Amino acid sequence: MATFDFQGKSVYFETHGEGRPLVVLNGIMMSAASWSEFVEPFSANNQLILLDLLDQGRSDKMVGEVYTQEIQVEVVAALVAELGLEKVSVLGISYGGEVALQLVLKYPELIDRLMLFNTTAATGPWLGDIGDGWNKALDDAEAYYYTTIPIIYSPAFYKGNREWMENRKELLCSTVFNNPDFMGSMERLTNSAAGYDVSNRLSEISAPTLVVSAQQDYLTPIEEQQKIVAGIPSSHYAIIPGSGHASMYEQPVLFCALALGFLNNTKTEFHIV
Amino acid sequence: MATFDFQGKSVYFETHGEGRPLVVLNGIMMSAASWSEFVEPFSANNQLILLDLLDQGRSDKMVGEVYTQEIQVEVVAALVAELGLEKVSVLGISYGGEVALQLVLKYPELIDRLMLFNTTAATGPWLGDIGDGWNKALDDAEAYYYTTIPIIYSPAFYKGNREWMENRKELLCSTVFNNPDFMGSMERLTNSAAGYDVSNRLSEISAPTLVVSAQQDYLTPIEEQQKIVAGIPSSHYAIIPGSGHASMYEQPVLFCALALGFLNNTKTEFHIV
Amino acid sequence: MATFDFQGKSVYFETHGEGRPLVVLNGIMMSAASWSEFVEPFSANNQLILLDLLDQGRSDKMVGEVYTQEIQVEVVAALVAELGLEKVSVLGISYGGEVALQLVLKYPELIDRLMLFNTTAATGPWLGDIGDGWNKALDDAEAYYYTTIPIIYSPAFYKGNREWMENRKELLCSTVFNNPDFMGSMERLTNSAAGYDVSNRLSEISAPTLVVSAQQDYLTPIEEQQKIVAGIPSSHYAIIPGSGHASMYEQPVLFCALALGFLNNTKTEFHIV
Amino acid sequence: MATFDFQGKSVYFETHGEGRPLVVLNGIMMSAASWSEFVEPFSANNQLILLDLLDQGRSDKMVGEVYTQEIQVEVVAALVAELGLEKVSVLGISYGGEVALQLVLKYPELIDRLMLFNTTAATGPWLGDIGDGWNKALDDAEAYYYTTIPIIYSPAFYKGNREWMENRKELLCSTVFNNPDFMGSMERLTNSAAGYDVSNRLSEISAPTLVVSAQQDYLTPIEEQQKIVAGIPSSHYAIIPGSGHASMYEQPVLFCALALGFLNNTKTEFHIV
Repeated sequence: MATFDFQGKSVYFETHGEGRPLVVLNGIMMSAASWSEFVEPFSANNQLILLDLLDQGRSDKMVGEVYTQEIQVEVVAALVAELGLEKVSVLGISYGGEVALQLVLKYPELIDRLMLFNTTAATGPWLGDIGDGWNKALDDAEAYYYTTIPIIYSPAFYKGNREWMENRKELLCSTVFNNPDFMGSMERLTNSAAGYDVSNRLSEISAPTLVVSAQQDYLTPIEEQQKIVAGIPSSHYAIIPGSGHASMYEQPVLFCALALGFLNNTKTEFHIV
Repeated sequence: MATFDFQGKSVYFETHGEGRPLVVLNGIMMSAASWSEFVEPFSANNQLILLDLLDQGRSDKMVGEVYTQEIQVEVVAALVAELGLEKVSVLGISYGGEVALQLVLKYPELIDRLMLFNTTAATGPWLGDIGDGWNKALDDAEAYYYTTIPIIYSPAFYKGNREWMENRKELLCSTVFNNPDFMGSMERLTNSAAGYDVSNRLSEISAPTLVVSAQQDYLTPIEEQQKIVAGIPSSHYAIIPGSGHASMYEQPVLFCALALGFLNNTKTEFHIV
Repeated sequence: MATFDFQGKSVYFETHGEGRPLVVLNGIMMSAASWSEFVEPFSANNQLILLDLLDQGRSDKMVGEVYTQEIQVEVVAALVAELGLEKVSVLGISYGGEVALQLVLKYPELIDRLMLFNTTAATGPWLGDIGDGWNKALDDAEAYYYTTIPIIYSPAFYKGNREWMENRKELLCSTVFNNPDFMGSMERLTNSAAGYDVSNRLSEISAPTLVVSAQQDYLTPIEEQQKIVAGIPSSHYAIIPGSGHASMYEQPVLFCALALGFLNNTKTEFHIV
Repeated sequence: MATFDFQGKSVYFETHGEGRPLVVLNGIMMSAASWSEFVEPFSANNQLILLDLLDQGRSDKMVGEVYTQEIQVEVVAALVAELGLEKVSVLGISYGGEVALQLVLKYPELIDRLMLFNTTAATGPWLGDIGDGWNKALDDAEAYYYTTIPIIYSPAFYKGNREWMENRKELLCSTVFNNPDFMGSMERLTNSAAGYDVSNRLSEISAPTLVVSAQQDYLTPIEEQQKIVAGIPSSHYAIIPGSGHASMYEQPVLFCALALGFLNNTKTEFHIV
């Protein structure tokens, strides 16, 4: 648990364990703290590096500033330098996957293996409208809950985890979505993804890449990952059925299996094919 | 174009053409007027019966009243009686499909063939939260647009029909979603579906039934129609790829083909199987 | 029930009913007789034209001759001329869909609407090997049954129609697959599809086209129809879940609905989109 | 590389590396030797145990004997005892997955984690007919190739690996499928799966289980794995797109990632859900 200075901003990060280093990039509403249940398996054989991007968790807020995801790319690159690492593998989920794609395009030499869960290659007009809808609900915690959460979790998860969902709703509405600081960050983070589009540059990526779709992802639907897979020649593709956008929470065992299995596989070239 | 009295309320309806009669039940935001492009093909060989359910289009508003979809079931049954018809086929989309399912369960003797597009058998907790999100956005036309429309149209449709979508946004925000009367109706209609659940009664249905899913339907996802198909022994099931929830607008040719082909097919028993 | 002369060969055909004319092109093992259960619905509002392609049913056998599907294209064009029709719609299933695609490419002026069920745009190396496997089993009726039938019908159909399948096996093995004339035709028909590939010409097609996949089609899998849909700008696409390659037998009601609904739809241009 | 005695039969096995032990159970045509490319990654952190089931590879042939897969279950249990292991994880692919399911049902105390790739819970009438087709082609190497291989590999793999496929065809037809000993084993192995059905016992399984489907698997289609997942409460489910039945060969990187990630994950209970 530490911080480093990035252009006058304090950036929070944690490292856990030893081994092939893995930087995990959070989804938009998440922070390093969201991964508490995953620290054990992810640090068992690896150096797990968690961080809060700008406007996330314990990193500085960007009040009054307008930025794009490019600044988050620089934050990650600076952290890699700060840690004195030559190369890291990167796992990004959703917003974090978008940052990961821009990172590998700008600093390919820094990236060992790439893992993209529930990620899109562009904020198209549809996703843009969804973001605008989120921004319209910033002033009302319940409105924000109802506008965002059903797009993030699948109907089956909702139905199968009533108590957990109700508790989470209580928690989110009473301590998170009613916090003007958090909501200001959410607005800026949402806006920072507005012009994002790497669709035409995917073929430049040569890092071994794992792309994972959740079959009931209604925020970054399966067709988006199919485009990424079609674009990156070195990609490998898996689908998690029975999961919505929040695949790490809905199917944590599979999430771990895919991420750690791909990260630590000692062989990426097979003579079979 | 006419009206009839239902428990003191005026209900608007239209009939077009002659032949096997078909009652079309609208989705929640729709009205008889939404089907203007479909009148020609649907009335070419059939008696097409369009109506506005209570709180829709030119039918009376239910200001100050609380009701469930059951009242809409009675509206439809009353219209069938009004028209002096013994049996009608029914096509429902979304909200209209929910009314159709309750109609065939309550008045099986009235129903010839049943067609369900983008329909669910229950308003579960997930769909309930989406409805609550819609209700939270009632006071702001743009908020309502951004909260509802991306859940109704697919990303591909958004991308492929930019001008149409922009024009529609302009129209909806300037003349519909900013109309307090319309929004009051939307709130009541949304609430009228809140407790809906016919999951356990599907096996009672014996009418020849067509169930249609749209592959990118993120409001009544494909799993919901799979449950309906599993429940109704006399059901036939098709999937429209490349379409979101608004299948009639996104894939109108297929919508017509499936609906009219199923409605007018002269043979429903084959000795092959 | 009649025949006409095609280059010295007798070609069998039937016409039923009146209305917009539809030519149906058989799958490889089929003949005009295979459609007996469909004559009623298909001729209710249309002129249904059934025929046996060369080496099928009651048309002449091509003993000792080597040919490609191009000759079947000429057979169909000759029949259209024989009937004095200016334009016909064409429905092809499997082998018949391949002939239909080549027909519309060679004689676009003859084709009104096009319907392709369980069709591929090319006989690639995989499908070629399957055909070679069929040809290896020609001398043993049971071998031919076991090699072809499980690729044509879905596991669910097998399981749900045991008696029908057993009776059909008995019939096929005792009177069809043990008939050297029939098996000689099967070999030539299979070989006639060997070099087929219209993949690069699909974009030339402008006829309104319906493409239908069966979700459990293991002979012309869903990916093949996706290529056709991507290639033909004027195509409309539907998927039949719960059906193998023989969609007309496994889901006859949906088969009729899609085919007749698309054929007789009076409107193919919608101002919605 | 060693053998042990099982009821007077010699059973071949290999162990590689150290760590949590994993027994790999081969598909029907495979043997321990088929895994040569996987030994390195699978033994990097685990004790990999490969074996030839009876009638496979270097284990004894069962000439003149009739048996079911139950004997293979006993072979595996005996090997676990031979190695002095208390518990092992088991990965089975296809035939091997069927043996794995029967093993965990008979000897649940022996099984740590279970991984099922391309597996079915029963040899239904459809799969039975496919097996009969294979048996009909035993006497002709090319016939056997054309009857089995296109059902095992996907069309895309065929197309994308022409040279490898052609070389493999040459090899299989000249040295394997023309070997009467091998073909006798294939016949007995195929027959040993004939009555297999654990459909109604899946709920008894409590071992953490990974189930993996290949999206273009036309021998044990995706619906079969969906039944297994529905039956085993402790199951986790992933789909590999772009792969046929031979997922280990078509997508070896994903195969390793899923298998090793699931096997070595240090956490199977998450408090999230």
